[in-house]
Amino acid sequence: MSLLVVGSVALDSVETPFGKADGVIGGSATFFSASASVQTKVQVVGVVGDDYPMDQLKPLEKRGVDFAGVERAKGTSFRWRGRYRHDLNVAETLETHLGVFSHFSPKIPPQFRNAPFVFLGNIDPRLQLDVLTQVQKPKLVACDTMNFWIESRRADLVKLLGHVDAITLNDGEARQLTDCANLVKAAQWIMSKGPKLVIIKKGEHGAFMFTSGSVFFAPAFPLEDVFDPTGAGDSFAGGFMGYLARTGDLSEASLRRAVIYGSAMGSFAVEKFSIARLLEVDAKQLAERAAELHKLVAFEQEIA
Amino acid sequence: MSLLVVGSVALDSVETPFGKADGVIGGSATFFSASASVQTKVQVVGVVGDDYPMDQLKPLEKRGVDFAGVERAKGTSFRWRGRYRHDLNVAETLETHLGVFSHFSPKIPPQFRNAPFVFLGNIDPRLQLDVLTQVQKPKLVACDTMNFWIESRRADLVKLLGHVDAITLNDGEARQLTDCANLVKAAQWIMSKGPKLVIIKKGEHGAFMFTSGSVFFAPAFPLEDVFDPTGAGDSFAGGFMGYLARTGDLSEASLRRAVIYGSAMGSFAVEKFSIARLLEVDAKQLAERAAELHKLVAFEQEIA
Repeated sequence: MSLLVVGSVALDSVETPFGKADGVIGGSATFFSASASVQTKVQVVGVVGDDYPMDQLKPLEKRGVDFAGVERAKGTSFRWRGRYRHDLNVAETLETHLGVFSHFSPKIPPQFRNAPFVFLGNIDPRLQLDVLTQVQKPKLVACDTMNFWIESRRADLVKLLGHVDAITLNDGEARQLTDCANLVKAAQWIMSKGPKLVIIKKGEHGAFMFTSGSVFFAPAFPLEDVFDPTGAGDSFAGGFMGYLARTGDLSEASLRRAVIYGSAMGSFAVEKFSIARLLEVDAKQLAERAAELHKLVAFEQEIA
Repeated sequence: MSLLVVGSVALDSVETPFGKADGVIGGSATFFSASASVQTKVQVVGVVGDDYPMDQLKPLEKRGVDFAGVERAKGTSFRWRGRYRHDLNVAETLETHLGVFSHFSPKIPPQFRNAPFVFLGNIDPRLQLDVLTQVQKPKLVACDTMNFWIESRRADLVKLLGHVDAITLNDGEARQLTDCANLVKAAQWIMSKGPKLVIIKKGEHGAFMFTSGSVFFAPAFPLEDVFDPTGAGDSFAGGFMGYLARTGDLSEASLRRAVIYGSAMGSFAVEKFSIARLLEVDAKQLAERAAELHKLVAFEQEIA
């Protein structure tokens, strides 16, 4: 089943303790689609400037990512420049140039409007709400967000929560949104506003999935070398939504596996700059990493 | 099988966002034995001053904790005063009075010397080494440590590593000891110095157990209310060692369950001040929490 993502298609310049990358492809929709396309076809809606190296998206097109919804506007593409120091959990933003992204108004092409799975990447919640008026009864809608929108567009974001089935956000964002330091309480607060499914990502510390009746925890894969954390969260979301779109199964057992596939894709993303590692991953490697995650937490209960 | 612990028996004054406790019983050996005694008999070696409220240890004696190795010395008991603010992962030490603990020289009573399981709580590594000269070929020796000893007694600590089977320490301590930011590499460094088993505790983010051929991850139980984190690490160690002493089984499957029992006991410890919650826990409650941890991470792999 097809999977629609709306988000940023950007150019990143990143510095980590292990190297530098300058003007490489990035953005939430790019990482998401690079990740999800390991499992399913992806349709992207976004905007780039006339300076964007479209040829670098070719490998994704080959994998079944459809960029027909990416508008080419006059002007410069969204650029982000950031740095990670010793603590790879914290990105330091050095520069943000919104460029054509500052006037982004998502237009969903007619052939994308009946996508059963929709992911609203981290953009203005007013635009995320607007996307929902353009699509036809998806089977599952999930959204992401960030500190900037929680601060500047709180009312719109809370309104959005009433219209999505699921949300992915990180622990800091969950605390900021809900004013609850405790993540169990934060998830309950968010669920009370609408979403049946709350996924709280904790980077190297794994991720929780909360539903009204259950809690699931997926560990992060313990890598020896984390090279560049950029895009890990969007890659997680891509693995999660990709699994659901591939199987069409929304049972608890399937949702749990989807979170594991999200964790696995997040762990691949950080092994190289940009989407380089994601482009190498195939279904077999993904299944192998999911099996490693299974081994990582497996234990047999004591017989009473 | 009996379990020997050597460590501090102290008085804590703690302030958390949820309340205050003044001069309550604490210390590494106290938390450890309160936790381990849910599963097995415990023998304690330590020292207290003549001001220590020995009657408050009575409930532990009733549970099978033997304090015959706790010396009563002239002077004041070890007192710690600390505070936790919003971030319950970080203890702020306000005062430390070592008192009689500053001259502590552990003397293992003859009847304790053949304990098959030995836990060297967080004391001077020179004293931990000295304890090992007094005991007879235990089946398993584990140690704990802290930043203070890593800084001031590095050589002794590294020497100690050559004489223990297992070590429990937190993520910050593992990084400080090994100068590796990455925990997988940190664990490998520690194993290269001797221990076959390295347990890295990450507080609310769970715990890793590394062996030469495997990695296991145990989540922390997602509590709605964390009341006081003091003693969580020692309670974890008590649950872990208590399980091993109860079963005598050192297989990988058993070690994994032991880590889960450690995580479960750590989660109980933080629900009330001092050892109050630990004293309420029985074998049934412990098994139930272990079952909850099983559900928390359980997922079925996809059929290929």
